[in-house]
Amino acid sequence: MTFRASILTLYPDMFPGPLGASLAGRALEDGKWSLDVTNIRDFAADKHRTVDDTPAGGGAGMVLRCDVLAAALDSVADGRPMLAMSPRGKPLDQARVRDLSAGEGAIVLCGRFEGFDERIFEARDVEPVSIGDYVLSGGELGAMVLLDACIRLLPGVMGAASSGEEESFEQGLLEYPHYTRPYEWEGRTIPEVLRSGDHAKIAAWRKARAIEDTRLRRPDLMERHGDARDQSPSGARRKEES
Amino acid sequence: MTFRASILTLYPDMFPGPLGASLAGRALEDGKWSLDVTNIRDFAADKHRTVDDTPAGGGAGMVLRCDVLAAALDSVADGRPMLAMSPRGKPLDQARVRDLSAGEGAIVLCGRFEGFDERIFEARDVEPVSIGDYVLSGGELGAMVLLDACIRLLPGVMGAASSGEEESFEQGLLEYPHYTRPYEWEGRTIPEVLRSGDHAKIAAWRKARAIEDTRLRRPDLMERHGDARDQSPSGARRKEES
Repeated sequence: MTFRASILTLYPDMFPGPLGASLAGRALEDGKWSLDVTNIRDFAADKHRTVDDTPAGGGAGMVLRCDVLAAALDSVADGRPMLAMSPRGKPLDQARVRDLSAGEGAIVLCGRFEGFDERIFEARDVEPVSIGDYVLSGGELGAMVLLDACIRLLPGVMGAASSGEEESFEQGLLEYPHYTRPYEWEGRTIPEVLRSGDHAKIAAWRKARAIEDTRLRRPDLMERHGDARDQSPSGARRKEES
Repeated sequence: MTFRASILTLYPDMFPGPLGASLAGRALEDGKWSLDVTNIRDFAADKHRTVDDTPAGGGAGMVLRCDVLAAALDSVADGRPMLAMSPRGKPLDQARVRDLSAGEGAIVLCGRFEGFDERIFEARDVEPVSIGDYVLSGGELGAMVLLDACIRLLPGVMGAASSGEEESFEQGLLEYPHYTRPYEWEGRTIPEVLRSGDHAKIAAWRKARAIEDTRLRRPDLMERHGDARDQSPSGARRKEES
């Protein structure tokens, strides 16, 4: 099964952009995922190809018209999840990325200007999604981030030796820190335990560092995932096995 | 003053990519910001141009060598903040974006593979930054997200009518929802208050909706910012004036 990504945007030339290079680009060439890009402007109904209008109630900027957005969405809708990149949306996280990457693909609506006429979210099954607590000039970079995160998890993309299970957010923890040669550099050495060859000790050190770094840097992650982790015997078992 | 962005990457061809189009692209042409891109591989010390090695202690993937990273960083270091895109980093938010955009620019280190040898963070003043709680195939998209967020806030980029003050996260709240013509669409109408012409009523409705949507969708934001908002008379005044 190929993961099918459909992008709706006013800037179709931005795609595939960074998604055409490196890991995602090779996966695209290999047919692990497909990409089609639709220009929202093609669904404007007037001869001036108008896609936006001034905000009802006043204010700066322009708002994308719901009738134009709906026509664009309806042209690609086929049961895949429909997402709209928006700072008002639900924050994207690795669990949602895993869910999406296990599905048939996604339809991603990219806004510009002030955003979307809110009625589009009620009238169509479009879910607003945010990639973080900051504001971008448009949804295109967010769509690329979302797709890149999904694509690397598709079967065969990272390869058999992939480390997807141990990385950040998979256990509600940040990943442990990494080291490599040279052993000594500017007077700083690799932690001795990592050179011990004792796999159990290394695993224990890494787990302790992952917990310590998460506690120091992301107490919010600890809080959100702590209970589930502590109380789930299967979760605990998975961690010990990894 | 021009905001100077220096990127360190193994994929220099990805840049400017999406940052060369639309708002960021026009700002780049207008000299509102500048971009230079350095290939980390140019700082490899051996004839094979090796930049990475296997993780100390074992495990999948490859780790970027600290000596190569340091040489690349040292080639552009000039007092601007040095950031490394990493899921282990501090989450980027709009306050940090505002800080960065008010400065001289940024040096942004993009990793691939398993990440950076941790010693680079101790040996150089490099701050790990995360754009969200998910894992990407590399730091390049994160760097573009960070820069796009900064660039749109640079003086003259969004124009005088910019709505930067009212948008999501600026008051610790999501932005209120937007509507535009047509007034009625598929049986759904624009909220009446927005057609009243009563600016005070419209402002009150928008504020109430911003608070309501934030409470429903992002209770974490409410919690984090609620106290500061409630207790700061200057914050309250600024909101009423806006």
